[in-house]
Amino acid sequence: MFSFSEASQQYQNSLSEFFDQHIYPNEEHYARQLQQSPSRFAAIPLIDELKAKAKDAGLWNLFIPPSLAEFCDHQGLSNLDYAPLAELMGRVLWSPEVFNCNAPDTGNMEVFMKYATPAQQERWLKPLLAGDIRSSYAMTEPQVASSDATNIELRIEQDGDEWVLNGRKWFITGAMYERCAIFIVMGKSDPHNSNRHKQQSQVLVPRDTPGLSIVRPLTTLGYDDAPIGHAELLFDNVRVPLENILLGPGRGFEIAQGRLGPGRIHHCMRLIGAAQRSLELACQRVTSRSTFGRELSQHQSVREDIAKSFAEIEMARLLVLKTCKRMDEVGPKAAMDLIAASKISVPLMAQTIIDRCMQMHGAGGLTEDYCMAEAFNYARWCRQADGPDQVHQMALGKQVIKRYSA
Amino acid sequence: MFSFSEASQQYQNSLSEFFDQHIYPNEEHYARQLQQSPSRFAAIPLIDELKAKAKDAGLWNLFIPPSLAEFCDHQGLSNLDYAPLAELMGRVLWSPEVFNCNAPDTGNMEVFMKYATPAQQERWLKPLLAGDIRSSYAMTEPQVASSDATNIELRIEQDGDEWVLNGRKWFITGAMYERCAIFIVMGKSDPHNSNRHKQQSQVLVPRDTPGLSIVRPLTTLGYDDAPIGHAELLFDNVRVPLENILLGPGRGFEIAQGRLGPGRIHHCMRLIGAAQRSLELACQRVTSRSTFGRELSQHQSVREDIAKSFAEIEMARLLVLKTCKRMDEVGPKAAMDLIAASKISVPLMAQTIIDRCMQMHGAGGLTEDYCMAEAFNYARWCRQADGPDQVHQMALGKQVIKRYSA
Amino acid sequence: MFSFSEASQQYQNSLSEFFDQHIYPNEEHYARQLQQSPSRFAAIPLIDELKAKAKDAGLWNLFIPPSLAEFCDHQGLSNLDYAPLAELMGRVLWSPEVFNCNAPDTGNMEVFMKYATPAQQERWLKPLLAGDIRSSYAMTEPQVASSDATNIELRIEQDGDEWVLNGRKWFITGAMYERCAIFIVMGKSDPHNSNRHKQQSQVLVPRDTPGLSIVRPLTTLGYDDAPIGHAELLFDNVRVPLENILLGPGRGFEIAQGRLGPGRIHHCMRLIGAAQRSLELACQRVTSRSTFGRELSQHQSVREDIAKSFAEIEMARLLVLKTCKRMDEVGPKAAMDLIAASKISVPLMAQTIIDRCMQMHGAGGLTEDYCMAEAFNYARWCRQADGPDQVHQMALGKQVIKRYSA
Amino acid sequence: MFSFSEASQQYQNSLSEFFDQHIYPNEEHYARQLQQSPSRFAAIPLIDELKAKAKDAGLWNLFIPPSLAEFCDHQGLSNLDYAPLAELMGRVLWSPEVFNCNAPDTGNMEVFMKYATPAQQERWLKPLLAGDIRSSYAMTEPQVASSDATNIELRIEQDGDEWVLNGRKWFITGAMYERCAIFIVMGKSDPHNSNRHKQQSQVLVPRDTPGLSIVRPLTTLGYDDAPIGHAELLFDNVRVPLENILLGPGRGFEIAQGRLGPGRIHHCMRLIGAAQRSLELACQRVTSRSTFGRELSQHQSVREDIAKSFAEIEMARLLVLKTCKRMDEVGPKAAMDLIAASKISVPLMAQTIIDRCMQMHGAGGLTEDYCMAEAFNYARWCRQADGPDQVHQMALGKQVIKRYSA
Repeated sequence: MFSFSEASQQYQNSLSEFFDQHIYPNEEHYARQLQQSPSRFAAIPLIDELKAKAKDAGLWNLFIPPSLAEFCDHQGLSNLDYAPLAELMGRVLWSPEVFNCNAPDTGNMEVFMKYATPAQQERWLKPLLAGDIRSSYAMTEPQVASSDATNIELRIEQDGDEWVLNGRKWFITGAMYERCAIFIVMGKSDPHNSNRHKQQSQVLVPRDTPGLSIVRPLTTLGYDDAPIGHAELLFDNVRVPLENILLGPGRGFEIAQGRLGPGRIHHCMRLIGAAQRSLELACQRVTSRSTFGRELSQHQSVREDIAKSFAEIEMARLLVLKTCKRMDEVGPKAAMDLIAASKISVPLMAQTIIDRCMQMHGAGGLTEDYCMAEAFNYARWCRQADGPDQVHQMALGKQVIKRYSA
Repeated sequence: MFSFSEASQQYQNSLSEFFDQHIYPNEEHYARQLQQSPSRFAAIPLIDELKAKAKDAGLWNLFIPPSLAEFCDHQGLSNLDYAPLAELMGRVLWSPEVFNCNAPDTGNMEVFMKYATPAQQERWLKPLLAGDIRSSYAMTEPQVASSDATNIELRIEQDGDEWVLNGRKWFITGAMYERCAIFIVMGKSDPHNSNRHKQQSQVLVPRDTPGLSIVRPLTTLGYDDAPIGHAELLFDNVRVPLENILLGPGRGFEIAQGRLGPGRIHHCMRLIGAAQRSLELACQRVTSRSTFGRELSQHQSVREDIAKSFAEIEMARLLVLKTCKRMDEVGPKAAMDLIAASKISVPLMAQTIIDRCMQMHGAGGLTEDYCMAEAFNYARWCRQADGPDQVHQMALGKQVIKRYSA
Repeated sequence: MFSFSEASQQYQNSLSEFFDQHIYPNEEHYARQLQQSPSRFAAIPLIDELKAKAKDAGLWNLFIPPSLAEFCDHQGLSNLDYAPLAELMGRVLWSPEVFNCNAPDTGNMEVFMKYATPAQQERWLKPLLAGDIRSSYAMTEPQVASSDATNIELRIEQDGDEWVLNGRKWFITGAMYERCAIFIVMGKSDPHNSNRHKQQSQVLVPRDTPGLSIVRPLTTLGYDDAPIGHAELLFDNVRVPLENILLGPGRGFEIAQGRLGPGRIHHCMRLIGAAQRSLELACQRVTSRSTFGRELSQHQSVREDIAKSFAEIEMARLLVLKTCKRMDEVGPKAAMDLIAASKISVPLMAQTIIDRCMQMHGAGGLTEDYCMAEAFNYARWCRQADGPDQVHQMALGKQVIKRYSA
Repeated sequence: MFSFSEASQQYQNSLSEFFDQHIYPNEEHYARQLQQSPSRFAAIPLIDELKAKAKDAGLWNLFIPPSLAEFCDHQGLSNLDYAPLAELMGRVLWSPEVFNCNAPDTGNMEVFMKYATPAQQERWLKPLLAGDIRSSYAMTEPQVASSDATNIELRIEQDGDEWVLNGRKWFITGAMYERCAIFIVMGKSDPHNSNRHKQQSQVLVPRDTPGLSIVRPLTTLGYDDAPIGHAELLFDNVRVPLENILLGPGRGFEIAQGRLGPGRIHHCMRLIGAAQRSLELACQRVTSRSTFGRELSQHQSVREDIAKSFAEIEMARLLVLKTCKRMDEVGPKAAMDLIAASKISVPLMAQTIIDRCMQMHGAGGLTEDYCMAEAFNYARWCRQADGPDQVHQMALGKQVIKRYSA
């Protein structure tokens, strides 16, 4: 088996205790607060209470790796060490924010840590690390296949001492959330540069900047993912000062690549947790319900489904752990084959397993009475969130063919 | 191929024209009205306008079979003749109500036609046939496996000249809808009868009867299916006059079986339409989008997905048509094998195909911008709506084993 | 349902009786004769006895369609009418030869009927129709992707009053069989013709022609398909008289297309029968075996597998019947979409179902004690035999995309 | 990643070199010798040559674990350390015998090491360890579900100073092989013992004992697995001296359980190698073949298949490695969940991947020209060889349900 550092093991224990004491018992409470919230995208008071508790328990900013440990109160956790923690957080979809470990803020904080000036860090990173504000990363556009970042069309033009932004973005996670204060926006500042990877820049746009409007929240399979949400945004002559650029003009693509580092695999880690919890719920269900004179657990088909799900989760988990280990050892670029393998396998596996587990719960399994329906949506969405399955399959396929046909 | 009557062919043509003129062009309009509705479960003005048009066009109550033609203005349509019409309606999920052909009202109207007294018909069937009121069928209960109707626990007790109902129901489709005026409620009136199929009765409960309360709307995969909806209901000493019983005490199971007749296969017919439309959308998408330098339609994997979907829809459609034909010829009981075969095949097929077609649309495919996400939910829900897949597989498996091992 | 002509129904009855009396009771007998045969590819005496009986019973050359009825003693059977007969023959893999309905002779006889001169017909078609000799169709070549017929490389050159053939062929079904007397050989006679479809010719090569040698029998999944077999052939300066050409120089592609007509779908018809019989065997098995204290038939997983298989066979059969009907009405070219849909669906479906049924038989299910292992190989092989699945998916996908994106 | 001992790493290197020098270059040679062999089940001279070379290279009896290292010339290899070696051997199906690591001899040698008397070891184990004779383990019976060992019916009765055996066995691997000298036979010596696990004994039966006859070789999917083979055996008053019993009367079940130890997972290890090699062959094929104007490797569907296969192999391999590690740490009994997870996942995964890779090779992929068809049969057979998938799913399902529903 993969061996975790002592620090990771301790975190696994305390996080697990925290879930037993503060997360699982509050799931209904959370649902009620969200339902009764004045706005779908308002902050949930319970989350703030739990954040305070998590900070007290030292369960804060656990996503930060050793190389960036200066930004946190712990020594940094490698991908491998973080994986079981993220898996645990995947069991309750809203829980990562409690530990300041939710997407897209984790990736955005990494961008600030790695590419921002001290002034930018002071202004935005500090409150992000403290959990006081939230952020968004505005990359994807409705009119182009955004899985190829060079397709991005939002225009960033210099006009005097300002950048002027014009364009449209969508699936901008977190943008609906009332606490979202800052957008990192990728666009084209030099569209005619002969080097297609130098055409882009990334600039910081505070939420209340004139010209920036939220067109609408988007749903996936009927879920709005409130209060964090996904938004469609319009940039209509949005102006920000020149110093709001990250790294400098023409370096947007480079930042985009850098942001894909560790964060790349966090969804997969969490999906393992979502699938594992669904399996556990199914095991409890089938021992508490009878049909046609036998407990569900005694039907051979139920046992086969449970057995298959167990084996599939175990395999997916091992693949993710190996991917983490490799990323820790050789960096994300050299681990691209395993990263892609995880991405094409884990979300689809999770979707299939959760579907199976819902089915064992009868009609109720599809409702909000269980966490599975929303987890199903999460798994399904992840098959697009970071590029469609097919794009990762293409890239991985090419690489494997090359490796073995040489 | 299966041959449809001339009447059916004419209806296919006019219904298709009606869709072109009035349904497809109004899809956005409908979505907007629903979104802006003061209540999720209020009636949608557009529907009323379209209902008037459908009546004018003679496209009304098409679900009524020849044997019940006295209740409608046409000669009745056999299952086979109705199938292509229902398929067409399946292309737009909210459209069946326009033609007074939506679940659960169709099944309920059949119950009234077949089992109600003239007085009951006058009071409830007439406005249902006119589309003026809506109805619900309250069968499923949260605490028991309701796919076995003998498990139903809601109590129906006589007290003087009234029936008194106590119990809980859920997944009661249509109960949320503000136009829902009447509930057909199945419960146990004689729980100790040695004949398990004589313990049940069905009584009519008007919506505003004291003691009947709507606990909450239920969602499936995040969808509330507004404005029709699915409700959880509480019956707390609900009292109705003795004449509100259908057929008579102890005949509830018999009615439940009878209700399963033609209606049994309507979901499958509509799901063919939902899958077919998703396929057509996918074909349009892949010819209007390019990635990595080629139109999507030129990727071999896209062609394989389209080809598989085409073949699967064709097979599912043929199975449904054969099932209809058989039901027309020998009745639903003797066609049980094909009915079960349709039920275990069509919803899962539709779910798979729609999932594939959504994926070809990128992230947008999961949103409300297309009809696919909601159709996906419909297909998934149908794998439970009329009993879980597994129950139909069990019944069919037993029957096939018996047939061939004799 | 599809309606068969009275003639077809009578044939179905007599063929079914013939199977009960002469085929099923002889399965072990056949296996023993094959096993004890002096050569793997010698004729089996039992087949000759049964052929005589089949002729007597008027069950002979049933594959011949109405348009070619002059060549047989019946009125010709449409594709739809022939389908249930071929399905029945698919239940016992060696049975089609008994009725002179086996591949590749059926396709070859069609070629002779449609494209041969009276002299050629007299010399070869007559004994083929009588079942006295067998034939082969030499198309596929090992070194090129032969699913695209224009890739064929075998050279046919005129030298004086002879054609001289040089090249290599493989997967030449029937070539191993000792009764095989004539090869129809496709090759390039005019490789530089600017019209790629005019470069090919087809010539008749008697088996004992000098220069023609059988390199080896080929196996698929370990089966040699004896006594008919698949061969690799070498043509080394093989010389035949000029009159041995079919239709004329440059018309080889045209003949190849014509040959694909009705025969196209015969494999699919037979595979339905092979799958259906496997299902029936499974039903008998699960009622005659107990594990862990219960009859196999009582395991829910077994019932689910049986139910799924039943539904899948039913859908596949309907698709094949619809394809036949369409071919009868509009010809094979206009029915190309359904033909392709059948080809990509039926063999894979049969492979899956037979695999499931073998599994229900325990280890014995994989052996020669049952017909399933060989039927599995037949289904698997059909996914290549007439072009790989992927080629049909490509063609169908293109056509469907075009249809719906217009 | 899992870390292998230095010894294992060295063996991996030398074994890999040995394959490059002696195994891969001899594959055609082996096929030819087998084909030209006077009998299907005669020893192959090439194997003897290679065995000598393997011994010289110190690549002998690698399956022996540290706890039994006294029986070999190395320190013993843990399951984890042996796994990559067995994977390598899985790339060429006949190769394990070269290293004296083939089933069923490895399991049988373990039985002799753990349960035999010094005299029995001297007589049978010594030549087995030297590779001079081969052995069989006669457990499975045609008439009972042998996955439950208590069902075994072969009778073992004492008569004077002899055991008398009567019964029938099948799927007795190795029994056809001319070098097979000794059978370990499980039967019932005390059928009325109230403890169902004390009814069985295991006795040693030399091959030439009167009354023991080979009924026939069995095939799976058309393969006879020559020269090792699977046999059906008849025991007709077979007599052996009393000292031929292992451990003592009534201890047969105990031995059967013990034999399932490490050997349990060897098939899975080898199947990883078989799948991996098929994937590599597919990569080579798709870069050397063009259809419709493009190299196969450039088709998106091909890349998707390759990518999926890569990910699935990686996951399966990790599961097997984790299972090995756990077996090494806690013993096979406590690792039962992972062992079952491997068994239900790996053979089916291998079957699917190999099927896909064959398909990418066109019709030729199904022939003896590649190792894939035979490897496909091996994977399919493994889904029965050590108990059907369903039995392992049942056991695992029960265990997982219990774990999570507590």
